[in-house]
Amino acid sequence: MNENQKEKKDQNIDGMFCQKTVEKWGVLEVVCQGEAGGNPFIERTIRGYFDGKQEHIAVEGFYDGNGVYKVRFMPSFEGRYAFRIEGTYGGGIQSGVFEVTAPSAENHGPVRVANTYHFAYEDGTPYYSIGTTCYVWELQSEERISETLETLKNSAFNKIRFCIFPKHYDYNLGEPRSYPYEGSPMDSSVLTKENFLEYTGKTEGNHFDLTRFCPEHFQHIERCILELQKLGIEADLIVMHPYDRWGFSQMTKEQDALYWKYVLARFSAYRNVWWSLANEYDLLEHKTLEDWEGYAAIICEKDLYHHLRSIHNCRPFYDHSHPWITHCSIQRQDLYKSAELVNEWRERYRKPVVLDEIAYEGNIQHGWGNISGEELVRRFWEAVCRGGYAGHGETYMNPDDVLWWSHGGKLLGESHKRLHLLLEIMKETPGIGLCQYENCGWDEVCAVPEQEFMKPVKSYYLYYYSFMCPSFREFYFDDETEFEVNVIDTWEMAAEWRGVFHGKFRIALPGKPYMAVQIRKLR
Amino acid sequence: MNENQKEKKDQNIDGMFCQKTVEKWGVLEVVCQGEAGGNPFIERTIRGYFDGKQEHIAVEGFYDGNGVYKVRFMPSFEGRYAFRIEGTYGGGIQSGVFEVTAPSAENHGPVRVANTYHFAYEDGTPYYSIGTTCYVWELQSEERISETLETLKNSAFNKIRFCIFPKHYDYNLGEPRSYPYEGSPMDSSVLTKENFLEYTGKTEGNHFDLTRFCPEHFQHIERCILELQKLGIEADLIVMHPYDRWGFSQMTKEQDALYWKYVLARFSAYRNVWWSLANEYDLLEHKTLEDWEGYAAIICEKDLYHHLRSIHNCRPFYDHSHPWITHCSIQRQDLYKSAELVNEWRERYRKPVVLDEIAYEGNIQHGWGNISGEELVRRFWEAVCRGGYAGHGETYMNPDDVLWWSHGGKLLGESHKRLHLLLEIMKETPGIGLCQYENCGWDEVCAVPEQEFMKPVKSYYLYYYSFMCPSFREFYFDDETEFEVNVIDTWEMAAEWRGVFHGKFRIALPGKPYMAVQIRKLR
Repeated sequence: MNENQKEKKDQNIDGMFCQKTVEKWGVLEVVCQGEAGGNPFIERTIRGYFDGKQEHIAVEGFYDGNGVYKVRFMPSFEGRYAFRIEGTYGGGIQSGVFEVTAPSAENHGPVRVANTYHFAYEDGTPYYSIGTTCYVWELQSEERISETLETLKNSAFNKIRFCIFPKHYDYNLGEPRSYPYEGSPMDSSVLTKENFLEYTGKTEGNHFDLTRFCPEHFQHIERCILELQKLGIEADLIVMHPYDRWGFSQMTKEQDALYWKYVLARFSAYRNVWWSLANEYDLLEHKTLEDWEGYAAIICEKDLYHHLRSIHNCRPFYDHSHPWITHCSIQRQDLYKSAELVNEWRERYRKPVVLDEIAYEGNIQHGWGNISGEELVRRFWEAVCRGGYAGHGETYMNPDDVLWWSHGGKLLGESHKRLHLLLEIMKETPGIGLCQYENCGWDEVCAVPEQEFMKPVKSYYLYYYSFMCPSFREFYFDDETEFEVNVIDTWEMAAEWRGVFHGKFRIALPGKPYMAVQIRKLR
Repeated sequence: MNENQKEKKDQNIDGMFCQKTVEKWGVLEVVCQGEAGGNPFIERTIRGYFDGKQEHIAVEGFYDGNGVYKVRFMPSFEGRYAFRIEGTYGGGIQSGVFEVTAPSAENHGPVRVANTYHFAYEDGTPYYSIGTTCYVWELQSEERISETLETLKNSAFNKIRFCIFPKHYDYNLGEPRSYPYEGSPMDSSVLTKENFLEYTGKTEGNHFDLTRFCPEHFQHIERCILELQKLGIEADLIVMHPYDRWGFSQMTKEQDALYWKYVLARFSAYRNVWWSLANEYDLLEHKTLEDWEGYAAIICEKDLYHHLRSIHNCRPFYDHSHPWITHCSIQRQDLYKSAELVNEWRERYRKPVVLDEIAYEGNIQHGWGNISGEELVRRFWEAVCRGGYAGHGETYMNPDDVLWWSHGGKLLGESHKRLHLLLEIMKETPGIGLCQYENCGWDEVCAVPEQEFMKPVKSYYLYYYSFMCPSFREFYFDDETEFEVNVIDTWEMAAEWRGVFHGKFRIALPGKPYMAVQIRKLR
């Protein structure tokens, strides 16, 4: 028996299995056979200790059904690790070793806050967030899920917001593919577009055991998180939300804590996970500020990898200056101004500003879901040029009532096509991230690299004219420096190189909205 | 000699002429021959007393050159009047009588504030302001002036803002057709688009006698005011402004007072005159709040007909709560929100809100002059549905540098065509003026008749969806009332009658921006 065979054997005996190698920022999973009797979710524990040269992590595992317990670990360093598993789960103490290999080409690690207002993957690669929202795409049919993944693959999106709990709301009256708890839901055939608001929160007819999770529900979500990971998309998990008829939004403190710990034990080891404590936290009327701070404390204690954490509002913002909040996740408060307020929010919170909800492209009756593609793309550019990030969503009526914003599927709109160009332009930023130049003209948005805000070196300017339609603009930086100029039609997705200029120069523009001018110092 | 002949003779003798009849709200002018020597503008006086059954008015006249003095009077009542002229003008005491006849069909009298937030002519006819700005249209060539009048005739405009002084600014470097004072201007051939800002205010090379007016300059403006009157257009006269190279914006207190009194003596009797104390008052850096209040005091003393009075800002608003201010004349302060703030301004000032400058349709480099036609029309509708009034302007580049905003001429844009429909809709309002219903939804602008704000009678609703693109909207007022519904495409200028509805009803919409729904109780 050679060394390799021995290792393999070591880790596949006595009711325990663990892979032998894992890549850095991958998921190392230890699977243990334990007791299935009673209620393992609340009566049993399992915990893992992972020791490498540069980190020593103690992490909680979870019960995955059929007597199986799992402990997951995301290593942040390469090299040899040892582990030990223990707890009352019924399988005794287990141990082993594994090797952490270099990350594969597309694996840049988890996303972190890089320089106060922007993000980068842990390996230093800038991450320019282009988000979309599909609240319960993962709880639809297999066919729909495949269609959504195919759509995402061809999109510019690198973040998607979605819920762990099913959703009950306008256009969301059907049954999810699974429930997070054992039990049975109310009869949804009584629901109509007219009466659904009478069935909210804890409604009669639901019989769920809120101490017994359905592992299949979570296993499925894990598969979806991994599918997103393959596409380079961050999973911005909405852990709580108010669009409920089953009572999941009105659980007790103890039930909530059990849920949060289970979620954290299952999902924390996936590098592309972000925590969104809630969608529209203020609509969860049974929850107090103390409750939210309590959930945050659980995350901070149990997520040892420090994934990004935020909380999304309906009307009043949560106070984003709380230290546990890594970035502002904002739903706009004003019908007319959204991305235009990024400067203000940056200054107020000194954190990355992510506009997760600034109205969706679509044509439904609700004002949050019926702006034009042009307007949504304009809001994206306004956000980016002011040093923030915007989020997409689509709510076009269709015969099947399949709206991207909730169900995923196909994109019917026009805005998403324009986000590829925006992402390309963002990636051309020297350093990480843009911000609005402090001496910007009142009738333009002039973006410069974030690190030049305090000390401009005249290296790079991105001017955006939004809804204005100038037929020319004049520029002057100094008498000597030579700049090359691109004129970008952000809606028609065309960039035109205009040549090299210095001194005072004039750039002709087509006199229509949504134009940008990119000015780069010649090297 | 019969009575008529005697009257005629009485009023055309001894160096005095006065017409025998005038219509109510017309201009009765007494022309007297006096002394031409010295400086009649400052050394001579002339004053008229006009006595009818219901009014007794003492008004100052003015020197009109060549030894001619004039006193003008606008009667507000029908019937017989007597008048007497006196002063040091050199023609002694003159007197006579005249008959005030009924107003002609198109003469509704001066515009007044009707019900706190709206306007009506003195005869009670509602006046729905659709303004435009052509700062010095009247100081252009005869050909251009004719062209402007022809354009106005075919437009929906019923108010135009323009200056008494000539204008020096970007696109305004040429000589005006005349100057308000005797003397000679600087050589304008030195001016270029690059250097013109170096020639501002009191510039060397100008030699004007600021105590001697050029009557021809004012006579010409009077002809223009009368031409506008024939077209049913109010003349919103901008009496002072900062776009100056001749020194007219930096006169002494005494020179200013002389100017204001001359302007008031000449123009007050024209029923379609409004007083705009200044354009961008805050850019007249040599004027103090005390100066402005002083000019206002002169108007209030000398304009016995109480024409509308306002003052227009660049950045900070003048405090529109001053009692002499009849309505807010607003330049928007925010790049993104303008007409959307009408509600706020109504509440703050409790006066009509007229948005005289909310950016112009055009394609020049300046952000105040390059919004699309769609955006300008959207701002008009937002203003109107919130109980205010908007103003138009056009700044399209063209080979002759003739921009409507300053020079008049032809309109090249698209917004003006849409204002006819808006005016028609405004005229359909029961009572005078609209306001936003206090229980309006957050994602719509719901206008109701002003008088129903406090006590809705479900008579009339005008919903506007602005940039939003709903494909349907649902309505419910009560179970019984029958309403007829029109769907209005404010951009395509199409109105479609959709039938009669009651109870809860759903109106299909095309899922594009700029739609309105007009809902009227069936009689």
